[in-house]
Amino acid sequence: MTAETTASVAEWREALREHLGSDLVLTERDQMVAYCRDWHGDVTTDAVAVLRPRSTEQVAAAVKLCRNLGLAIVPQGGNTGLVLGAIPDAGQGQVVLSLERMNRIRQIDADDFSAVVEAGCILSELKDAIADKGMFFPLALGAQGTCRIGGNVSTNAGGINVLRYGMTRELIFGLEVVLPDGSIFDGLSTLRKDNRGIDLKQLFIGAEGTLGIITAISVKLTPYPDQVATALLGLASLDDAIKLFRRARRDCCDLMSAFEFMPPLAFTLAKEAMPDLPIPIAADYPAYVLMEISGSGLVDIDDLMGRFLEAVMEEGIVLDGTIAASQTQARNLWLIREGMNEGQAKRGMHLRTDVSVKLSQLAAFVADAEKAVEDAVPGVVCVSYGHVGDGNVHLNVLPAAHATPDERVEQIYKAKGAINAVLDEYQGSISAEHGIGRLKRGDFEVRLSPVRRQLLTAIKHAIDPDLVMNPGCQLNFSVNS
Amino acid sequence: MTAETTASVAEWREALREHLGSDLVLTERDQMVAYCRDWHGDVTTDAVAVLRPRSTEQVAAAVKLCRNLGLAIVPQGGNTGLVLGAIPDAGQGQVVLSLERMNRIRQIDADDFSAVVEAGCILSELKDAIADKGMFFPLALGAQGTCRIGGNVSTNAGGINVLRYGMTRELIFGLEVVLPDGSIFDGLSTLRKDNRGIDLKQLFIGAEGTLGIITAISVKLTPYPDQVATALLGLASLDDAIKLFRRARRDCCDLMSAFEFMPPLAFTLAKEAMPDLPIPIAADYPAYVLMEISGSGLVDIDDLMGRFLEAVMEEGIVLDGTIAASQTQARNLWLIREGMNEGQAKRGMHLRTDVSVKLSQLAAFVADAEKAVEDAVPGVVCVSYGHVGDGNVHLNVLPAAHATPDERVEQIYKAKGAINAVLDEYQGSISAEHGIGRLKRGDFEVRLSPVRRQLLTAIKHAIDPDLVMNPGCQLNFSVNS
Repeated sequence: MTAETTASVAEWREALREHLGSDLVLTERDQMVAYCRDWHGDVTTDAVAVLRPRSTEQVAAAVKLCRNLGLAIVPQGGNTGLVLGAIPDAGQGQVVLSLERMNRIRQIDADDFSAVVEAGCILSELKDAIADKGMFFPLALGAQGTCRIGGNVSTNAGGINVLRYGMTRELIFGLEVVLPDGSIFDGLSTLRKDNRGIDLKQLFIGAEGTLGIITAISVKLTPYPDQVATALLGLASLDDAIKLFRRARRDCCDLMSAFEFMPPLAFTLAKEAMPDLPIPIAADYPAYVLMEISGSGLVDIDDLMGRFLEAVMEEGIVLDGTIAASQTQARNLWLIREGMNEGQAKRGMHLRTDVSVKLSQLAAFVADAEKAVEDAVPGVVCVSYGHVGDGNVHLNVLPAAHATPDERVEQIYKAKGAINAVLDEYQGSISAEHGIGRLKRGDFEVRLSPVRRQLLTAIKHAIDPDLVMNPGCQLNFSVNS
Repeated sequence: MTAETTASVAEWREALREHLGSDLVLTERDQMVAYCRDWHGDVTTDAVAVLRPRSTEQVAAAVKLCRNLGLAIVPQGGNTGLVLGAIPDAGQGQVVLSLERMNRIRQIDADDFSAVVEAGCILSELKDAIADKGMFFPLALGAQGTCRIGGNVSTNAGGINVLRYGMTRELIFGLEVVLPDGSIFDGLSTLRKDNRGIDLKQLFIGAEGTLGIITAISVKLTPYPDQVATALLGLASLDDAIKLFRRARRDCCDLMSAFEFMPPLAFTLAKEAMPDLPIPIAADYPAYVLMEISGSGLVDIDDLMGRFLEAVMEEGIVLDGTIAASQTQARNLWLIREGMNEGQAKRGMHLRTDVSVKLSQLAAFVADAEKAVEDAVPGVVCVSYGHVGDGNVHLNVLPAAHATPDERVEQIYKAKGAINAVLDEYQGSISAEHGIGRLKRGDFEVRLSPVRRQLLTAIKHAIDPDLVMNPGCQLNFSVNS
C-alpha cells in the first residue's frame, strides 16, 4: 500500500463515518477480519470498511455514497458461501456491505402460506419462527444456523430438499433490491401468480450481488411436514442407487424430500469426526443411499416407506436397510452425512467440487472422473457423494496423508483438471449449486460461449454501468467488456 | 396506405422471397389472415409477410434479414394467446414469424425425466408422446390441442395444474433463443441443477417475444400420474372454498393437482354450450369446487380423496359432493368448467379478466369487486371463477342480453375500471397468467413504478437496441425511452 492510497483509505473512512454515522462503519482490522475471511478460512483479504446498515434506506444511502466516493461494494450475508463471492478481492477500493443487522421477519401469513423477511435473517430462525405456525420453508443446508436468507437468494442456494421443492429460486415470491444507483426495486409482493411480463426478480437470484443488493425477500411456505420417514440403505453400486431413485420418484410420487448418495468411506470419515456416532448398518456395501419421504395430513408416510422398501428389497435393488424409528435415530442418520464433511475437513486441505451431469449419466460420469483422477494423481482418495436425484455430485479428492502443503496444492490442481476434462465431455456444470463467486470465475469464463458472455456483459452494463457491485465476482467485466 | 409505402411493401416482400426462398414467405392476404387475427376473432390486423422457417438457422437468417430491411418481427406460436401479444399492430412495417413448422420433438429421455422440443410443437402432442413412455408434462390448458410450447414459454403460461407444479417457468430446464442480432443463444441443457451465475433463460420466459425468439425448449418431466381422483363439491361460500383449499393443501400434502372454484351460474352457462352435459350435483349451492388429487405409484389416491372428503363433510366445510367413478365421469366434470367458458362466449362480447390477489384476501376481493361492478354498471352479470389455490380469479362480466354492441363496449370499459380500482386497493395483479401483450399494455404501464420501468427499458435496450422484436408488446419502448 503506497502513501497515496493510504491517504485515500483514511479519507474514504472518514467520509463513510461522516455521512453514514460511526455506528454503521467498521474500519479496525480486527473488527473487519471476520468479514474478509472465507468460511473455510482458506483466504483472508482486506477492505476499506465494513458497512452494517440497519434498514433498506441505509443500504440505499450507503450505495449512493460509495458510488460518489468511487468505492466498490461487496454485499455479504452470513459469509458461509463456498466460492469467495462475498469477500473483497481488492481491499484498497472495496467495502463489505453486511446485511447482518437487517434480520427482522417483517411478516408471517400462515393463511396465505407466505412470509416476508429481511436479507440478514438467519435461515434457521425463519424456519423455527414459522414451524410454530405449522408452516415450513423447504431450504435445508448444513449452514442453516449461520447462513442468511439474502445470501441464499443471491447464490440461489440448493441443499438436500431440492429434488422435491427446487432451488431457492423456486421458493420465493418477490424481492426488494437496492440497485447500483441507490434506487430501491420494490418487488415484495406475495402474489402466488403474477405474470406481468418479464420477471425482473429472476435477474438478481443467483447474481451473487453483482447487479444489486437484496434487502428483503417474500418467501413461499408449505404446510409443515409432520410425518417424516428416513432410511439408510445399502446397495451394490451407484448405478443401482440411480435405478432406486427412478423407482422412488415414481412410487413415492412427489413425497420424496431427500435422496443422498454416499460411499462406504462416509462411515470412516464420519467416525473420524464423531467417534461415538452409531452406524446402524453394515459398512461394507459398495454404495449407500440416505432417503427421506415426508408429508403432512392424511398420507401415511411410514406405511409408504415400508411398502416401498419391501418391494425394492424383494427385487434386490436394495440389499440392506434401516428405517429410523425415532427423530433421534433420523438425526443420527443425517449426522453421518454431516460427519462425512467434517471428516474430510479433518484430513486437511482437499479438493471440493460441486458438479452436475444428466441423471442418466451420473454413474458413468463418476466412474470415468474417479478413474481420471486416479490416473492423473496416484495415491489420492476420491469421495463422491451428493444429491443423486438432481444429478449433482460432490466429487471431492483427499490428497495422501503424507503430502506436504505444496504437494497438496499441486494434487488438488491436477485432480480438478482431470475432473473438469471428464465433466466437459459429459456437458456437465462446474457449479451445480454453490455458484461462481471468485473461486470458479476462471473455470466459468473459459467455458462461456461468446453469446452468453455478450448477454451477461450487456445486462451488467445496463444495470451497473459503473461496475460498482461486487467487481471480480462471476466475471471480470472491467477486463472483458 | 400511400403509394410510397406500397412500393416499400412490395420491395420488402421481394427481398424476403429472394433471400429466404418463397417456401418460407407468405404474402397473400388470404393466407396471412389467420396469422393476423387473434384467438377470439376480436382483432384482425395486417403484416408485410408471414415467415415460416423450418429450422433455428432459418429463424436466425430471417431475423438478420428483417433487421437489415428495417422490418420489425412479431414471433408467433399457436396464436392462442389472449392478450394480442402475437399479432402485428403496424402491418406496414412488421412481419409475423411463425414457429409452426419447427414442431419436432428432438429428444425424449425417460431415464432422465427430460425432453427437448422445438418451439412449434403443439402442447398436447408432446404430452401424448411422453405418456407412452410413462411420463407427464404438467402444463394443462384449455388450448393445449392448438397452443405451441414456444408460446407457452414466451407467455409463461399457467393453467389448472399450477398449484402443484408451478407456472411454465418452473417446468423447463433450458432454452434455445435466436437473439435480436440473429445470434443463437444455446441453452438447451437438461441439467436439473446448474447454478452458474445469472440464469439467462429466465429473461426470455414471459418476455412475450420482446427480447428474442424461443426456438427450442428442454422440459422437465414427471412420472405419469396413473391415479387421478376428481370431485365436484358444493359449498356455502367462496370463503368456505378457501378454507377448504387450506385444509386440502395440508391434508393432501403435495398431491393436489387442481382446485378450481365455480359459481352456480357455471352450470347454466355450460348447459347453454353443451345441452346434454350431465350435472351430477344439485345446482343451487352458493359455491362449487372442482378438485383433483393425483399421483403415481404406491400412494392410494382414491383412498386419500375418500378420507379427505369424509372429514370435511363431517365438519360441514363441504355440503355435498360427487367423486368421479370413471375417467368419463371425470372428463364430464371438467367439461362443466370448459362449457362454462363456451357458454360465456355464446352470450356475446364480454369482459374477461385474469387477476390475482393474496390467497387470504380472495373472497373479500371478489365480493368487493363484484359489488363495484354492479354499482358501476347495473344489469350486468358477474361470473367469478378460477384457480383459487393460486389466488387467481377470472372475474368476467357479461353485459345484459339486450345491450347493443356500443352499449357492450361501454359496459365492458366501465366494469374493467371498477374491477381494477378494487384490485389496486388489494395490491393485486392485472395479469395472473395471460401476460401483457398489447391488450393490457395500457393498464400495465400506468401501474409501473419508475424503477421497474427503468430496469425494463435498460434490459430492452441492452438486448434489442434497435427495437426489432415485437414492438408495441408489453411496453412501448420507442415512445417511453
